Amino acid sequence: MELNETLKKQLDHRTIRAFKEQILSQEQLVTLLEVARHTSTSMFMQGFSVMHITDPKKRAAIRNISTQPYVGANGDLFIFMVDLYRNYQIRKQTGHDAGRVHTTDIFLQAYEDTVLLAVQNVLNAAESMGLGGVILGSINNDPAKLVEVLDLPKLTYPVLGLQVGVPDQAPQLKPRLPLEFIAFGNDYPKDFKASDLKDYDEVVQTYYDLRDANRRIDSFTNQVIGPKLSVASKKRDEQVKVLKAQGLCLDFN
Amino acid sequence: MELNETLKKQLDHRTIRAFKEQILSQEQLVTLLEVARHTSTSMFMQGFSVMHITDPKKRAAIRNISTQPYVGANGDLFIFMVDLYRNYQIRKQTGHDAGRVHTTDIFLQAYEDTVLLAVQNVLNAAESMGLGGVILGSINNDPAKLVEVLDLPKLTYPVLGLQVGVPDQAPQLKPRLPLEFIAFGNDYPKDFKASDLKDYDEVVQTYYDLRDANRRIDSFTNQVIGPKLSVASKKRDEQVKVLKAQGLCLDFN
Repeated sequence: MELNETLKKQLDHRTIRAFKEQILSQEQLVTLLEVARHTSTSMFMQGFSVMHITDPKKRAAIRNISTQPYVGANGDLFIFMVDLYRNYQIRKQTGHDAGRVHTTDIFLQAYEDTVLLAVQNVLNAAESMGLGGVILGSINNDPAKLVEVLDLPKLTYPVLGLQVGVPDQAPQLKPRLPLEFIAFGNDYPKDFKASDLKDYDEVVQTYYDLRDANRRIDSFTNQVIGPKLSVASKKRDEQVKVLKAQGLCLDFN
Repeated sequence: MELNETLKKQLDHRTIRAFKEQILSQEQLVTLLEVARHTSTSMFMQGFSVMHITDPKKRAAIRNISTQPYVGANGDLFIFMVDLYRNYQIRKQTGHDAGRVHTTDIFLQAYEDTVLLAVQNVLNAAESMGLGGVILGSINNDPAKLVEVLDLPKLTYPVLGLQVGVPDQAPQLKPRLPLEFIAFGNDYPKDFKASDLKDYDEVVQTYYDLRDANRRIDSFTNQVIGPKLSVASKKRDEQVKVLKAQGLCLDFN
């Protein structure tokens, strides 16, 4: 089977964090937003929105929250958010009650079926156009602050940022877990043995070794047992509180 | 700007629910799984797995849960799941504690950065290969039952199904909310007016009207104010309980 251009890009995906000093053309911008708009949506509820943040002050505030210097530097910055405000307003303004907009079920549907699928769809689109991008989970290092910076109404919640632009770096492809560890048939393999990762750990160590002499040389196992899964950026655990303050997942207790 | 093949497919996305009686070749299957494997992942934690369900009994059980006759009929069926079991085992088997695997923060990272992005990436890949697909949120109509059917360990949680195959239908493109309602600049428009959807409502009504004489003719506004956001499939709200039973989101209260 010959790989088409879409597959080639997908299998060759690497995160780009350094962009040239050049913004998207209006045509590119609209195309990316159109792709977001055409992403699958659960029950046709279309429960998401995307903000394109160009205001230098807001970009700086988001950079401070994420604590990553490349956030809001070169490139175009988007914030993808759960948006049940719009549908709530439709219900309210036509004389209906809130229905189930405050439930975790409806939140998760908006979360997964539009926000996240749309992010990947837009990233694929950007990469197909020769651009690069980075998905920003770090925008939620201080979720209360982010809601304040973006001045968001209740029933919205920013989930991920996406920064795209013209790549100004050419990173190596990062070696992922071999398929046998992540893709299964009818039975989930509960007898997973951490020691089976030995070969993969060596591949990952070599990757870091070659990539940057200044970075720690770290196997996958060492990353899993290290601070990434042990130490919280303190305010990240406030996501739960902020979700509820936004009127979402009120049944989660 | 000329649209490349990736963009054309994305802007032309439509859900396919009817497939020919033909399964993926081994090469196609592996390519799709490889694309999932190459999707962006938060903190490199790779906290997801995918199951390829071929067992007719399990397919029937999943169809019963989803209550949709096309689920597990023709086409290949995948279940994408949050999988923190593997990383927990790595920590445990190397003498470490569970760290933050039980937190909502880590759950949401696994949820968004791999499970959902991977689903869209695989769907795009399938569509680029001339296949069609449907994302299945309905697998969680009875989450406790689904965990039982798939015999999943704690710290895993099935999020979405994806069924792909050779299309046996050619549905119309479904009209989405115009960009002005979902894509914003620096400021979120809190002054949204439901009455501004009048034109769009008419477009949606026409779409249903043309699509199938047997389907209700329904505007977007009518769908938002109707049972989709008011009436729960009872067990869907058990997602919260099942997540906790799986040892996930234990800090959510």
